[in-house]
Amino acid sequence: MTKPLTLHPDRLFPAEPTVRDIARRLYAGVADLPIVSPHGHTDPAWFATNEPFSDPSSLLIVPDHYVFRMLFSQGTLLETIGVPTVDGSLTETDSRKIWHVLASNYHLFRGTPSRMWLDWVFSAVFGLDVLLDAETADLYYDTIDAALKTEAFRPRALFERFNIEAIATTESPLDPLVHHAAIRASGWGGRVVTAYRPDPVVDPEAAKFADNVRRFGETAGADVSSWDGYLAAHRLHRARFREAGATSTDHGHPSARTADLAPEDAAALYARVLVDATPEDAELFRAQMLTEMARMSIEDGMVMQLHPGVHRNHNAAVLARFGRDKGADIPTEGEFVDALKPLLDRFGTDPRLTLILFTLDEDVYSRELAPLAGHYPCLRLGPPWWFHDSPEGMRRFRERTTETAGFYNTVGFNDDTRAFLSIPARHDVARRMDCVWLAQLVAEHRLPEDEAHEVAHALAYDLVKKAYKL
Amino acid sequence: MTKPLTLHPDRLFPAEPTVRDIARRLYAGVADLPIVSPHGHTDPAWFATNEPFSDPSSLLIVPDHYVFRMLFSQGTLLETIGVPTVDGSLTETDSRKIWHVLASNYHLFRGTPSRMWLDWVFSAVFGLDVLLDAETADLYYDTIDAALKTEAFRPRALFERFNIEAIATTESPLDPLVHHAAIRASGWGGRVVTAYRPDPVVDPEAAKFADNVRRFGETAGADVSSWDGYLAAHRLHRARFREAGATSTDHGHPSARTADLAPEDAAALYARVLVDATPEDAELFRAQMLTEMARMSIEDGMVMQLHPGVHRNHNAAVLARFGRDKGADIPTEGEFVDALKPLLDRFGTDPRLTLILFTLDEDVYSRELAPLAGHYPCLRLGPPWWFHDSPEGMRRFRERTTETAGFYNTVGFNDDTRAFLSIPARHDVARRMDCVWLAQLVAEHRLPEDEAHEVAHALAYDLVKKAYKL
Amino acid sequence: MTKPLTLHPDRLFPAEPTVRDIARRLYAGVADLPIVSPHGHTDPAWFATNEPFSDPSSLLIVPDHYVFRMLFSQGTLLETIGVPTVDGSLTETDSRKIWHVLASNYHLFRGTPSRMWLDWVFSAVFGLDVLLDAETADLYYDTIDAALKTEAFRPRALFERFNIEAIATTESPLDPLVHHAAIRASGWGGRVVTAYRPDPVVDPEAAKFADNVRRFGETAGADVSSWDGYLAAHRLHRARFREAGATSTDHGHPSARTADLAPEDAAALYARVLVDATPEDAELFRAQMLTEMARMSIEDGMVMQLHPGVHRNHNAAVLARFGRDKGADIPTEGEFVDALKPLLDRFGTDPRLTLILFTLDEDVYSRELAPLAGHYPCLRLGPPWWFHDSPEGMRRFRERTTETAGFYNTVGFNDDTRAFLSIPARHDVARRMDCVWLAQLVAEHRLPEDEAHEVAHALAYDLVKKAYKL
Repeated sequence: MTKPLTLHPDRLFPAEPTVRDIARRLYAGVADLPIVSPHGHTDPAWFATNEPFSDPSSLLIVPDHYVFRMLFSQGTLLETIGVPTVDGSLTETDSRKIWHVLASNYHLFRGTPSRMWLDWVFSAVFGLDVLLDAETADLYYDTIDAALKTEAFRPRALFERFNIEAIATTESPLDPLVHHAAIRASGWGGRVVTAYRPDPVVDPEAAKFADNVRRFGETAGADVSSWDGYLAAHRLHRARFREAGATSTDHGHPSARTADLAPEDAAALYARVLVDATPEDAELFRAQMLTEMARMSIEDGMVMQLHPGVHRNHNAAVLARFGRDKGADIPTEGEFVDALKPLLDRFGTDPRLTLILFTLDEDVYSRELAPLAGHYPCLRLGPPWWFHDSPEGMRRFRERTTETAGFYNTVGFNDDTRAFLSIPARHDVARRMDCVWLAQLVAEHRLPEDEAHEVAHALAYDLVKKAYKL
Repeated sequence: MTKPLTLHPDRLFPAEPTVRDIARRLYAGVADLPIVSPHGHTDPAWFATNEPFSDPSSLLIVPDHYVFRMLFSQGTLLETIGVPTVDGSLTETDSRKIWHVLASNYHLFRGTPSRMWLDWVFSAVFGLDVLLDAETADLYYDTIDAALKTEAFRPRALFERFNIEAIATTESPLDPLVHHAAIRASGWGGRVVTAYRPDPVVDPEAAKFADNVRRFGETAGADVSSWDGYLAAHRLHRARFREAGATSTDHGHPSARTADLAPEDAAALYARVLVDATPEDAELFRAQMLTEMARMSIEDGMVMQLHPGVHRNHNAAVLARFGRDKGADIPTEGEFVDALKPLLDRFGTDPRLTLILFTLDEDVYSRELAPLAGHYPCLRLGPPWWFHDSPEGMRRFRERTTETAGFYNTVGFNDDTRAFLSIPARHDVARRMDCVWLAQLVAEHRLPEDEAHEVAHALAYDLVKKAYKL
Repeated sequence: MTKPLTLHPDRLFPAEPTVRDIARRLYAGVADLPIVSPHGHTDPAWFATNEPFSDPSSLLIVPDHYVFRMLFSQGTLLETIGVPTVDGSLTETDSRKIWHVLASNYHLFRGTPSRMWLDWVFSAVFGLDVLLDAETADLYYDTIDAALKTEAFRPRALFERFNIEAIATTESPLDPLVHHAAIRASGWGGRVVTAYRPDPVVDPEAAKFADNVRRFGETAGADVSSWDGYLAAHRLHRARFREAGATSTDHGHPSARTADLAPEDAAALYARVLVDATPEDAELFRAQMLTEMARMSIEDGMVMQLHPGVHRNHNAAVLARFGRDKGADIPTEGEFVDALKPLLDRFGTDPRLTLILFTLDEDVYSRELAPLAGHYPCLRLGPPWWFHDSPEGMRRFRERTTETAGFYNTVGFNDDTRAFLSIPARHDVARRMDCVWLAQLVAEHRLPEDEAHEVAHALAYDLVKKAYKL
């Protein structure tokens, strides 16, 4: 017997009638605002070529680490759901079979944001009205597969249907940005910009670092054998990215450590890490590069984003067989107060700098991040990120940052996702949860309702555009 | 003037009528399920001999560190409540006098789980209907004392009345398990199993470690002078424990550190710690033994439990006068991501291993434990533990783990207690708080109510049986 | 168009009618209790001279680091709001202009406690009934400025109007306490006591430490060239402070580390730090001095307060230009379990000692502080402090400490402020939030309402008087 799938109009709103009514009124003012997505991992090729998505599982399961990590944690082999192997050995290729694995295990996602996002995609995007389970798996598969073959489900059509005003992808300096060029050349009006993520040429512990740096220099036409040439290459690539619409840079370091070395010491360090980096040299070089990036941001106006504190690819067996980014990233402790001091001592009060901080260590919200952002003019707090991009994660973020940093030292939501179809659902959850938080303040007479409407609008739209200069 | 004592049928449910109604419905489905208690410290002698409990204070005050730590923190000397001293010097022996100390200080427990558990014992077990205070102390004492002398309050009768389907005690490999044997030989149908807690022979810093290891070898008939013989002794004792019903092992290490040494290095380490362990050698040996225990669990199917992160016996004066486990254990910071990696690299994806993690550092719920358990097939999250076995502790646990790890990577509740009479109250609090959490999800349209009923049943009964193979 | 400013009588109470009704009843019993303010930074000169406050901005903006840190974080230069510079270079001196800066940026404070405190001051103290914004800035300025020129707004009149039973200021041993003497000599009945904060002569890293110690010895008439003489000087100054009403000492160390050195080692350490302190020597000396202060507290009965864990003056540029305490203090991680052990091993069970702990690291509430205070007779928990002196901060404090430490190991509220006019608002927030917490316990049948009334009274009045012996 199938069960109904419905998206309740009051979902995520508290049951208490007074608070719910206020939340409804606040949400009504922001529900239909355009989506500004300043940080994410959609593939620009989608919008450049506008080819149809191939099939349900390749779109919704195989690339989504939220989905396959949960399945894996309960005993599903990654081979079973078609995650490609490093050596090319066989994994499941039958999209319908893969879909059945999700369907049969859908109960595992109860209480998770993945369930909420997927239900939204099934209902709002594909019009399904029964719940996904083993019995409805084929109905789902056939419905989604058929839809994906139509014009209305091509990437650009969905982009427009989703009311996306602007979206940023993320590329490394080694990327020629051909898809972004093709998008601009196509005459299509969708705004898809890139963001400068130099980790592969900044992190001496990155795979093929020396080779990366060599190509980085070649494509810039810069002599990267010297520190000055290396910095010049960054300036040239940054300019190239800005021409492709970039307004921000993005830095995924193991820690938030920064450094402010004398130029000759930085040059010597660079010479060392090019050859063979000790762990301490690698960490120091990344630290120094954050300060260099801040210096260049002051010059060229790009906004910096820093999101440290992840032990990447923690599972050695999964890394060996399936490669990187397979749901085995685990957060680690954050530390920002000492770590950021060198950069802040150098540039912390320069009004031209904006540095947006993310964390996976919620413990630092009230202890470090809100006090730092509530003081330094350059600092802003990114939204609850990754594992915390969820109702409870959002609630904790507002509860622990607002009283010290206020609302205006935050920068609205970003989805940070490659799961294109879920983007509206993710922004909707953020808008709803911000309205819930504001509704509670109103109901408890901590904020007048007219001011709460202004704040809701700022959190959904104004702050992100201002912070990211979009 | 005495005050009434009542157990409100809606206790712990939120006041908001919609949520409360849902919580009531969910709770109705799980309130009367049998109790499965997979981890605790009841004395198997109670069930072997079925002797009556001696008196109210010896049963409910003297052995309960939750109770005497609070009294002590507000100036009551442990001597006053009859806690035995190491040197046998006199402490209070008049049970009625001890009872009066609790009665006169009962207000100190306002807002604590101890108050909730004790009130349940007084009301539901002994039928008292007035609140405990100085005035009602004698009534309480006489009522409880009289009841304890009756057949209905003997251990086995209470076990049956409490609807306990299975209970695990915890013993060291040095324990001959005679009480468990006596229980089985008695023909009584209650299921009381042991659990293998090898800390005294695994922790080189344990009291009398070398002597423990010697006895460990003798009772196994193994030559523990060698590393191989020592491991063989573990296998023999584990087999003996499995014959006494054990389905799990239990490891109370200072940290979660694991190691995966080459056999010759492990053998050399073992030889060193037998003679004189440096702190680092002791830590490394414990770390290596967790990996050895995982290896044996894969062989013999026993579920591993790891609960690190306590500074035991922090109060030097109390330790000297009253010995260990006298309410002076203080949690410390937890770290699992680096600590568990050696074990996980070795056995993390083996489908035969289950490793249940506990913590007293709530900070790691969302940062480390939920992401780890939401990825590794072998990992499961134990319930909110010890200091967090409380309504707010349970709320935080679900709020911080569910969105990343889901419900099915958790294993239901355990009471971890030697306070036998409070066991139903503790499980009842867990069932109520899980229903409250689920009711909130339902009321906010985050989970359909029929699915919430399934989850409530799983959390109260199914998951613990499955995880512990009971 | 101006907007109304009102203080809703139910502010901070939850919307849910049952809980709100209980909260109202509890609050009615404590709303009008006298204020006992045992820890703060009001200027005793105010009460000694009873001179009028000079102008609105000098009273409410320029000295309030909560206010100017938020303005600064959003780009307002400290010069613009008249914060004095170290070198005396010009900053804004026009009080009305400064007032307009706050008025134009008042939206930044939405959701912060500053907004709540300021609105209370504007409405309850000055009778304003429109919201502060650019349009009403002059009305505000004129109203407040006129009021400050009247007798009713002089410090002593406000002290009485605020129903302050006792207030403690904080002074260093280098302070001659002339204002406290003048207050006592004046015959005015207000109770203004001092507190002994020896940081400048205890912290070898304090500015001018050696010079401080020299003056410390001179004013005590003690020979501080020796360790014994230095300790004697402390005893003499402590006696002088007790004569000025002090009942407490106050210690603002970077960490909670304590030490218990042999006397000869302490004497040698003292000799070293007088000349040139290494960082480790400085830390060890501070650690040893906490134990010495505990010893003296046992002798003379003064209550100790310890509030570690702040990176002071984090912003190098602000420190250089504006000096210390300019809103750039950032919390750091707390650690109490190991840190306090030497002191606790020495004095932890002495019934004459009370040591009140504060933290800015909320993570240690449930992990370290509640378990420590729930065991050691000498330990008490100070209220949610500084950045956490806010509705959500107070909620988290009760949620995370009550179940382990109960209510009676806490000591009521303190305001820790120099913002005199906001003191009633701060205590009112604490009383309301405690009543909200208790109301939730009552509504969920976790505490009978009559007991909640007793606890509310204890939290608002009884516990602080008892703990601080006021």
